[in-house]
Amino acid sequence: MTYSIGVDFGTGSGRAFLINTENGKIEGQYIKNYTHGTIEGTLGGEKLPQSFALQNGNDYMEVIETGIPAILEKTDISPSEIVGIGIDFTSSTVIFVDEQMEPIHNKAGFQDNPHAYVKLWKHHGAQDEADLLFKTALEAKNRWLGYYGFNVSSEWMIPKIMEVNNKAPEVMAVTANIMEAGDWIVNRLTGQNVRSNCGLGFKSFWEEETGFHYDLFDKVDSDLSDIVRTKVDAPVVNIGDSVGTLSKEMADKLGLSQDTQVSPFIIDAHASLLGIGSEKDKEMTMVMGTSTCHLMLNKEQHKVPGISGSVKGAIIPDLYAYEAGQTAVGDLFEYIAKQAPYDYVKVAESRGISIFDLLNEKASKLYPGESGLIALDWHNGNRSVLSDSNLKGSIFGMSLQTKHEEIYRAYLEATAFGAKMIMQQYQGWQMEVDHVFACGGIPKKNGLLMEIYANILNKKITIIDSEYAPAIGAAILGSICGGAHPDFNSAIKAMKEPVLYQVEPDPRQVRIYKKLFSAYKELHDLHGYKKARIMRNVSALM
Amino acid sequence: MTYSIGVDFGTGSGRAFLINTENGKIEGQYIKNYTHGTIEGTLGGEKLPQSFALQNGNDYMEVIETGIPAILEKTDISPSEIVGIGIDFTSSTVIFVDEQMEPIHNKAGFQDNPHAYVKLWKHHGAQDEADLLFKTALEAKNRWLGYYGFNVSSEWMIPKIMEVNNKAPEVMAVTANIMEAGDWIVNRLTGQNVRSNCGLGFKSFWEEETGFHYDLFDKVDSDLSDIVRTKVDAPVVNIGDSVGTLSKEMADKLGLSQDTQVSPFIIDAHASLLGIGSEKDKEMTMVMGTSTCHLMLNKEQHKVPGISGSVKGAIIPDLYAYEAGQTAVGDLFEYIAKQAPYDYVKVAESRGISIFDLLNEKASKLYPGESGLIALDWHNGNRSVLSDSNLKGSIFGMSLQTKHEEIYRAYLEATAFGAKMIMQQYQGWQMEVDHVFACGGIPKKNGLLMEIYANILNKKITIIDSEYAPAIGAAILGSICGGAHPDFNSAIKAMKEPVLYQVEPDPRQVRIYKKLFSAYKELHDLHGYKKARIMRNVSALM
Repeated sequence: MTYSIGVDFGTGSGRAFLINTENGKIEGQYIKNYTHGTIEGTLGGEKLPQSFALQNGNDYMEVIETGIPAILEKTDISPSEIVGIGIDFTSSTVIFVDEQMEPIHNKAGFQDNPHAYVKLWKHHGAQDEADLLFKTALEAKNRWLGYYGFNVSSEWMIPKIMEVNNKAPEVMAVTANIMEAGDWIVNRLTGQNVRSNCGLGFKSFWEEETGFHYDLFDKVDSDLSDIVRTKVDAPVVNIGDSVGTLSKEMADKLGLSQDTQVSPFIIDAHASLLGIGSEKDKEMTMVMGTSTCHLMLNKEQHKVPGISGSVKGAIIPDLYAYEAGQTAVGDLFEYIAKQAPYDYVKVAESRGISIFDLLNEKASKLYPGESGLIALDWHNGNRSVLSDSNLKGSIFGMSLQTKHEEIYRAYLEATAFGAKMIMQQYQGWQMEVDHVFACGGIPKKNGLLMEIYANILNKKITIIDSEYAPAIGAAILGSICGGAHPDFNSAIKAMKEPVLYQVEPDPRQVRIYKKLFSAYKELHDLHGYKKARIMRNVSALM
Repeated sequence: MTYSIGVDFGTGSGRAFLINTENGKIEGQYIKNYTHGTIEGTLGGEKLPQSFALQNGNDYMEVIETGIPAILEKTDISPSEIVGIGIDFTSSTVIFVDEQMEPIHNKAGFQDNPHAYVKLWKHHGAQDEADLLFKTALEAKNRWLGYYGFNVSSEWMIPKIMEVNNKAPEVMAVTANIMEAGDWIVNRLTGQNVRSNCGLGFKSFWEEETGFHYDLFDKVDSDLSDIVRTKVDAPVVNIGDSVGTLSKEMADKLGLSQDTQVSPFIIDAHASLLGIGSEKDKEMTMVMGTSTCHLMLNKEQHKVPGISGSVKGAIIPDLYAYEAGQTAVGDLFEYIAKQAPYDYVKVAESRGISIFDLLNEKASKLYPGESGLIALDWHNGNRSVLSDSNLKGSIFGMSLQTKHEEIYRAYLEATAFGAKMIMQQYQGWQMEVDHVFACGGIPKKNGLLMEIYANILNKKITIIDSEYAPAIGAAILGSICGGAHPDFNSAIKAMKEPVLYQVEPDPRQVRIYKKLFSAYKELHDLHGYKKARIMRNVSALM
């Protein structure tokens, strides 16, 4: 019997899973919220810009160093049977480290410097830099742009590097390596300084055939090519290959064998696709957590505007992996739940249920369109298909009788409308969608939401029983690089997560939602394109 | 020494005041919330349309019959010294009564019939009828329309009559008189079946010179002229004159002299103008309660689009009284306060302050534009200048960090922007505004709101110390018809309310608010005019 470990680094927590490579059985698990959480609002008493979302890199290693020994302690499985480790991570979550691979925020004099901290994927401080990069790429007719939705997101690595170089040269001066946090974890495990093709391909203006786009970097900023050459560029290891084995020091520390193979890191949402077993075209998979990723696979590379990218072999060798995204989904529901009025919280408390349970119960009694509300779910900007992190949320149709569950339901619906915008975008560029999968933390917990998605997308949705699909996907990569399986197909078949339930669209609700979607689309276009400047003028005053 | 009684019938309560006619001193007062409140949501277990807002006529007489004796019991003033009674009432609040002036909802078989109840001013069930009346008036080039903002509001009396005739002919069949509730109170006091020129002129397609517009009514509905002739038309008594003395029965019941003169009813907001002492042109008075009225006086009759009307002698003889309005002000703040999250309520409770105090404290620390939010305050439709009761509220610019006090402040600002739209409309049609008065329940309680208004209107605002200006105004009418004063000028000078404080605009905030107003105006026009159909399509599904 062989086993593999998958470690999933999400936005708020890290989760380690020990998986049986023959049948996918979970033999052990460990989940830890990051000790410092997400650093927002203030750092060291100083106010941070609203766009900032930082993390402390030490929290990641804490998950590994406490989690894996804790799992091993509770099981009889021998370390020699654990053949591989896979890591998945949010992206582009960027860490700045010194020669010794020590995070800059650990250095004396940098504890209160926000730019010395990990820039979490949803850190939006680099919008100016992203705009400049986009403008320059457009003028230069950069071919890469077409495969990334004709868009440069402030969430990607290169704008974040430019931000630090512009705003905090003192941080850049002591930085030896700039890495996806996932690559950094792999370095900490193996001692190897390598980069995953998945991270570079999706977030760093890099292609397998041609490498980094230095010609573009030179046009943007005289420092940028040099920074990328000396601090980012490193040997690339492809998804499906092995980086190498654990370092002796780390094997001892974790209680694992020094022969354990380590996979290059994979982006968390992409790992989900492996975990749930979607490995072919015409399937759209929604990985639903704080945000949602919409993944598709295809043999061809189409230029789909407004998506986040398409990278060859980033998930399954030889297939192009497409990614699009919505920036606020679980985060948004959480926000709305926290805003629940006093009476609602009291009722939930007295009934011993969560505020989500109460809101879902009340919202499920509403019929589509009954509240007269339509919301735009841009509370954290819009990644696809508008690609504008400065956009903000709004809600229309309120009266003095509007109830909180109506607002809550309007936001559930708004995220489904946003998902439909993305699905229609794929469909408009020769990517048929026959089937929709949903996985991640939310679909299992929120049946109402899945009904709404089925009716709005007008597709049958298959919900996979796992909040942990990314971790399973990471473990699948661990099993492949550890030699437990000869190929992806065999590993996925053996280890993938089971189906939890399926939701079929209800024709009556589908009809109403078509009308509501057309109103959503008009508001989306009105506030997303031409008229976006109205609220842009307002946010310039913030 | 002589005295006068003013009785103010507001949306939620009735208030009786005994006033010294020589110095305005309040000698006694009585306030009572209506026993049945506003009937919304359900009636007799049946669901009411969201647009319905009904009241029970018995509640009004209860205020008079318990209030006046209660005041008299606590004072040594002799009934013979009380020379007059004035009544002000919300409008158009319409009551359907039988031959004996008994409300239809008191009749057997009508207790559960919503159309048998008083239709409160903010009852919006007659939108279709208002639309038809507007369309017909427009086609007929009806001259009246120009003086009523080129608009027919569903809040006026004629659409409400059409609604009952269309939806509940059984109610119309037993109705002998259809009256402003204020006229009905005057009838109950005096036994006279008369109409006030103020109510008819503002709400019923009636002019002093030509009477009712029967030519228009004939084009709208074959029944309408006949209904108005037999059930609405009656002798008219002008503001400043007397309807007559109390009936013997009522004088005995209330403990007043049978010589007490009774003034025709005046619309509540208009009474305020008398109460605060605005009696000339170039002054805009905002009467701020659940909703706001914006009143001006002028020697000329201008055709100002989007206002609610202009009637000669409705407040001060020989001057045209102009009225415009915002449908949700105090109501809207109340709604937002009720939506406050759990933590806010807990903090307010633990500090022993109201949720309003807490929200004002937090909101006052925000600088204009800091939140990035802009709201449209149409939660109860828009009366001026869009004149569309189907419009709904919205809020723009939300993020996952948006706080409740930011939303609250955005709505305070939104109502001030709405007031600025109205002021600009007056200014655009030859009505200069040199000075702004604020009165009603809200300005005294909410200094932050008044600062925001001063900065957004860019005008000095004089806040009058009275939530009771309408009652004082009513008492002024009582004093005039009772002969205590020879004319309006003398009565107002003696009895008007004192100034509480004044707020000057702050030039820095004025500059920022000019920018925010231009964003508000763009959103207002975008969602109020051309694109209103987007949300109209949604509310058609409700």
